Amino acid sequence: MSILLIGSLDDDDYADWKTHLLAHLPAGETLVLANEPHDVDAVEIALVANPPHGTLARYPNLRFVQSLWAGVDRMLSDPTLPTAIPISRLVDPALTQAMVECALASVLLLHRQLPAYVRQQARAEWKQLAQPLAGQRRVGVLGLGALGGACATALAGIGFAVSGWSRAPKAIDGVACLSGGAGMEQLVATSDILVNLLPLTPDTMGILDARLFGRLPQGAGLVNLARGRHLVEADLLAALSSGQVSHAVLDVFAQEPLPGEHPFWAHPGITVLPHVAAYSAPESAARIALENVARHRAGQPTTAMVDPARGY
Amino acid sequence: MSILLIGSLDDDDYADWKTHLLAHLPAGETLVLANEPHDVDAVEIALVANPPHGTLARYPNLRFVQSLWAGVDRMLSDPTLPTAIPISRLVDPALTQAMVECALASVLLLHRQLPAYVRQQARAEWKQLAQPLAGQRRVGVLGLGALGGACATALAGIGFAVSGWSRAPKAIDGVACLSGGAGMEQLVATSDILVNLLPLTPDTMGILDARLFGRLPQGAGLVNLARGRHLVEADLLAALSSGQVSHAVLDVFAQEPLPGEHPFWAHPGITVLPHVAAYSAPESAARIALENVARHRAGQPTTAMVDPARGY
Repeated sequence: MSILLIGSLDDDDYADWKTHLLAHLPAGETLVLANEPHDVDAVEIALVANPPHGTLARYPNLRFVQSLWAGVDRMLSDPTLPTAIPISRLVDPALTQAMVECALASVLLLHRQLPAYVRQQARAEWKQLAQPLAGQRRVGVLGLGALGGACATALAGIGFAVSGWSRAPKAIDGVACLSGGAGMEQLVATSDILVNLLPLTPDTMGILDARLFGRLPQGAGLVNLARGRHLVEADLLAALSSGQVSHAVLDVFAQEPLPGEHPFWAHPGITVLPHVAAYSAPESAARIALENVARHRAGQPTTAMVDPARGY
Repeated sequence: MSILLIGSLDDDDYADWKTHLLAHLPAGETLVLANEPHDVDAVEIALVANPPHGTLARYPNLRFVQSLWAGVDRMLSDPTLPTAIPISRLVDPALTQAMVECALASVLLLHRQLPAYVRQQARAEWKQLAQPLAGQRRVGVLGLGALGGACATALAGIGFAVSGWSRAPKAIDGVACLSGGAGMEQLVATSDILVNLLPLTPDTMGILDARLFGRLPQGAGLVNLARGRHLVEADLLAALSSGQVSHAVLDVFAQEPLPGEHPFWAHPGITVLPHVAAYSAPESAARIALENVARHRAGQPTTAMVDPARGY
């Protein structure tokens, strides 16, 4: 019986993951790669990195799926996905730290008005802008899971006035935690900078839309580090045109790579990052994924279980 | 006997400082402004914001000078400055917090390679660059006074591998503290990102020069938040041309405002900030300055005493 590595990966990525997985593979386990010949009947466990739709259904004896990435929305949208098999997401401290660093960099960029200073520099203009301290800047974080919670805590740690929203009520030291529909309204209305770290589900798709932008404080900043389809792109362009949103830092897009003719590239109000907020690093992720496999093999509960009904 | 407010200020700034100073003025004290008629013989104390050279020498009965700004280098370079009078710098937690925020924003900008991504965006290029975590990024802080020490602590707090250098040995939790000539060599050789927060003195003028750049790791980033004359501008341009320095964030310049024809404005390897890292906010600085005045009046030691021989 074997463990399958499968994903939307090129041969180099397969080889890189294989190296790190073999370094942590428990004794007695066999690793097979989807880009090499293998016995589909022998596969009991799949380690997945965004597997192409339809592929997991080919394995009749699959018992457990462990994602090597944090987001599982594309896998869950596979209509052929075997629904009875337990799935775990990846919660990797290294990936969380990378996301925290990107959130801090993005929020500080907006807080310290660096896009405005870059525009001034382009016209050789020496002009000092008003500069509130972090404690006077209200940052709202949408999503308080492993990633959003860590980002909210780190933002509060450097002095921002942080609120956070989650579907179910949570409590995080130093963060004003809101939930539910009224909580969402309150968070949006009081966010000078809004950071999206929600999972992508049918409920959250398109949540960053004209209605939400209209309820932000005038001139708010937006940071989207979650999924491109959280955002209604035309609505953001309109909100930037009206000045309702002053600047957006976007790491994710409905279509990636962002097409060359897309209006976001040349927009002075948008900073485009090519989906670099947080990578799954095989160095750390291989060990964490295989620890969860060992839990499954031992009949213990695995960590970061996905609820397909909830969507994450 | 009166307290004089004097500086390189316009009438609006005089009025703003006056409002906040009057709000905290101890009973029995009289405030006079240098831009209004006043009795020079009655002035015993001067609250100074970069006073024009020659002006403090006009006050024969001056007993104590309290700066409203953190840097006193321009005042100390006044050859007519009465040398026997005690001078205190401003140490204001609000100004320190602003400097910390600017240092974090600048270092994270370089750490997360935002200048490179902005250049890629300009040509609609979707390309992911290698992204080490903060713990793999060595940040060196030159100067561990009130500002440098706080910045080093905050950078370590978000995970960077931080070293710091000061003239005299210091100890700061989480920061590898170096001093002396050998310590400076070690710090520079191990700084992927170098942050300057030294005071400007005859010893530190021009310290950011070709020799120092040549000892940095190849492709290092530079952040200068201290004084423009710490930097040899031509040497930075050469280090950027050779790739020895990859990018510089500069908040201060030998001539301010930076002249319109200066090559820094249009340089893709330089982010120009118009001296906005940390303002003295009259709201907080007025109270802190007058608390020191009260200590002087009571015959107690004042805080943040300047040593003119040391230069800060």
